[in-house]
Amino acid sequence: MRISINRNADTPIYLQIKNQLRDMIFSGVLPEDFLLPPERSLAKTLEVNRSTVIKAYQELKADGLVDSHVGRGTVILSQAAKKLSLMEGYINPLPWYQLFTESITSSNDTIIGDIMAMTGGDVISFAGGIPAPNLYPVKIMEEIQKELFQKNGQELFLHSPVEGYYPLRESISYLLRQRQQITASPKDVVVLSGSQQGLDFAARIFIRPGDTVIVEEPTFFGAIQIFRSAGARVIGVPIDNDGMRIDVLESLLVRHKPKFIYTLPTFQNPSGVTLSLERRYQLLNLAYQHQLPIVEDDPYGELYYGNTPVPPLKALDRHGYVIYLSTFSKALFLGLRVGWVAAPPQVLAKFAHLKQMTDLHVNTPAQLLLDAFIRRGDYERHIALLRQEYAERRNIMLKALEKYKIPGISWNKPEGGFYIWCRLPDNIVRHKLVANAGKRGVVFLPGEAFYPDGTQGDTHIRLNYTFAKPQQIEEGIKYLMQAVRETVAASSEQENKRNIKPLV
Amino acid sequence: MRISINRNADTPIYLQIKNQLRDMIFSGVLPEDFLLPPERSLAKTLEVNRSTVIKAYQELKADGLVDSHVGRGTVILSQAAKKLSLMEGYINPLPWYQLFTESITSSNDTIIGDIMAMTGGDVISFAGGIPAPNLYPVKIMEEIQKELFQKNGQELFLHSPVEGYYPLRESISYLLRQRQQITASPKDVVVLSGSQQGLDFAARIFIRPGDTVIVEEPTFFGAIQIFRSAGARVIGVPIDNDGMRIDVLESLLVRHKPKFIYTLPTFQNPSGVTLSLERRYQLLNLAYQHQLPIVEDDPYGELYYGNTPVPPLKALDRHGYVIYLSTFSKALFLGLRVGWVAAPPQVLAKFAHLKQMTDLHVNTPAQLLLDAFIRRGDYERHIALLRQEYAERRNIMLKALEKYKIPGISWNKPEGGFYIWCRLPDNIVRHKLVANAGKRGVVFLPGEAFYPDGTQGDTHIRLNYTFAKPQQIEEGIKYLMQAVRETVAASSEQENKRNIKPLV
Repeated sequence: MRISINRNADTPIYLQIKNQLRDMIFSGVLPEDFLLPPERSLAKTLEVNRSTVIKAYQELKADGLVDSHVGRGTVILSQAAKKLSLMEGYINPLPWYQLFTESITSSNDTIIGDIMAMTGGDVISFAGGIPAPNLYPVKIMEEIQKELFQKNGQELFLHSPVEGYYPLRESISYLLRQRQQITASPKDVVVLSGSQQGLDFAARIFIRPGDTVIVEEPTFFGAIQIFRSAGARVIGVPIDNDGMRIDVLESLLVRHKPKFIYTLPTFQNPSGVTLSLERRYQLLNLAYQHQLPIVEDDPYGELYYGNTPVPPLKALDRHGYVIYLSTFSKALFLGLRVGWVAAPPQVLAKFAHLKQMTDLHVNTPAQLLLDAFIRRGDYERHIALLRQEYAERRNIMLKALEKYKIPGISWNKPEGGFYIWCRLPDNIVRHKLVANAGKRGVVFLPGEAFYPDGTQGDTHIRLNYTFAKPQQIEEGIKYLMQAVRETVAASSEQENKRNIKPLV
Repeated sequence: MRISINRNADTPIYLQIKNQLRDMIFSGVLPEDFLLPPERSLAKTLEVNRSTVIKAYQELKADGLVDSHVGRGTVILSQAAKKLSLMEGYINPLPWYQLFTESITSSNDTIIGDIMAMTGGDVISFAGGIPAPNLYPVKIMEEIQKELFQKNGQELFLHSPVEGYYPLRESISYLLRQRQQITASPKDVVVLSGSQQGLDFAARIFIRPGDTVIVEEPTFFGAIQIFRSAGARVIGVPIDNDGMRIDVLESLLVRHKPKFIYTLPTFQNPSGVTLSLERRYQLLNLAYQHQLPIVEDDPYGELYYGNTPVPPLKALDRHGYVIYLSTFSKALFLGLRVGWVAAPPQVLAKFAHLKQMTDLHVNTPAQLLLDAFIRRGDYERHIALLRQEYAERRNIMLKALEKYKIPGISWNKPEGGFYIWCRLPDNIVRHKLVANAGKRGVVFLPGEAFYPDGTQGDTHIRLNYTFAKPQQIEEGIKYLMQAVRETVAASSEQENKRNIKPLV
């Protein structure tokens, strides 16, 4: 019987003794009816106090593993051995994968996690959709936070209502009316943990396995993932410079009878395209005719560089068909995880129900912070600043693309939002481009993530210009174009070899 | 043609004009080919600048609703009329309820929302599960927050990893080892938006519609709601003073082949009962035999008043069968929405996947705040304080119950946690008790919410003693007992009447 004591461990010594004895009982080293050494002698062997051993034995007794009688000593119980042998005999590891639901098992992994991992270190990242950290209004937030501690004290840490902190719902209602021409009272708004939670809830509210959802093609990869995970078939409608092709949509509605249409009509992710006003009316018309809800995702609408963009679908909809999602993640920062939904009351009740059920409410301090930020007028000032700064970063990237461009590459000029959607030369081996750019310290997002049918996006990449520092953007594009050049050369060389080989 | 201008409205005047004209086109007041008044004369009528009317007409033109030619004036287009008549003719309101999934339609509402609404105002609330606000370490948090702004700056508002801010995962791992005898490395922990999100994720990972889940009876109502919503049949195992009746469990496992067992083994909600060590081993044994995961929910384990309670199942489990959930909501405050899961790697990957998909990550500032709080040793000091304070509040409530008790009432003496589980006299009409107590300004939670089979809990109520101020507790119990007395009297009177009536 060998027991080792570690005097530096966190576990108290009597517990170390007890646990090792228990292990020995479990593993059969100490059989039933085995007489443990007298406390005094074990204490001597281990160089510990006798009381420590007594305590260890008492614990074993309390667990029903040993019994002790004066004169007879401490004996391992037969009952315990039986019990423990059951427990500690050969136990199959749990076959977890057999227990998972289909949607969890099939869900493939996490481009988003990968992107987020890609943004650290010395890398020049065009991959994420993250606002410029150096523009975060940290000083103002610090000031507000200080005031909140003084004015609100413990309220800062209390629970909030499921639907959100009411003053923040008022502030959001104000922003919607002032800035987006959307009439939504505070009671028409529910605060969520980012607009992504709104997508998840929409899926839970509407999608049964086998249902169809219509999206733009390309569209936000997170939406494809969420709808698929709920069991939906995700059907894409192509876009052109005026956004979703409504002519194509119409025939799809007849054929697939979708549960809803998901659209990012303004400065779309990833294409940067905005749905024209005419098509907005056409889209609403089709929704009315087919009695079909529209889920409008509008994280970028505020971030325009030129003229005010056309109003959101929600502002044009007079019949309550549009569920409107937005967020503070693009105009301010992702870290607070605060977004919202504005929707007709019947639907909003379901969003609130899911919020209550899944995570109760949004982080209280974040809600108070954002509310104060809006009420002070800082939100409007901040947006004005972002417009200038992001327009400038976009311009730097456009100029760099022009400067370093190579044949076969083309791109759009977005009037707002976060992204340039860049077409690569044909027949480039895209995963090699990722590697070649990575070697040069540049990351971006491959296009296929944005297509329900993944193979289609092979010829595009998404370039974000809000996260990298302005002085890094030109450098990053230079390296990226070097990587493209190298990859194209290698690809056509390989192509040539492949063409030659069969002839040899 | 009547147009009204509101000079105090937020909407600019040109937009007010435009919108009203559009409304009139939509509703047919202004037919196709209708000639709008010349800009100058409309401006005069409305007492606005001519440029304002010009802008309104330009907007209508941009929307494709009117056309204007020099000499001819501004005319409503026939094309527009057709388009808009389609859109603005009789549009069916969306039949939302037909579009919802079954689980969303059937989910009944929100006892949790009701409780949270019940805690405001002058009411003495024994209803919620909310820690004492006057004990929140607000000053310390303020200090930490200030330091974080200075040290971390913009990092405070950046995204965090999906799995959680790594230093916080380290801190949680430390707490688990130090305080709960659970060995879980930081990589074995994922930070969640409260442990309730962990329940929702467990449901999404394991439950297909029609599956069975085993719970204690009574148990946390939120868990029943979540499992049901995922389509599970929820089967209860009765409890006694040593917790879940393992003898009953065994036969249920054979009969129902559940997907997992959900248990609150320590200071159970609502009963306050703790599963004995012997039964913990028995429960684990059964899980091993039946290859069945255990979801252990442990929000109260730290809050013991006497001896350290027996170790969590997770600490006793040597084969990776236990998924362990806990939270800062009970030891600190609900408002931050931070909890965690510790689980075997295969399962943890699924929790992380769902976190990424549904809301990306937990609020960053909250994670940094809690991490610093733990590292400074404040968490341990705070828990020590809570133990004293809550033991005192429990004692006050027990004393008051003794003082004002009436025949037929009994209750337990919890050794930790948040609740006294109180048995009412038989044949009391419980919803009348809610009303009678409400009249006196006292709220509590009716027992049936805690039973999968709701009718069973009729004879119990749950009394929380952590939220009400100590000086209110006795008063609240006094009023509550008055309400019980009144309700019993009225109930038996009614009973008597009902017994007599048929004879008349």
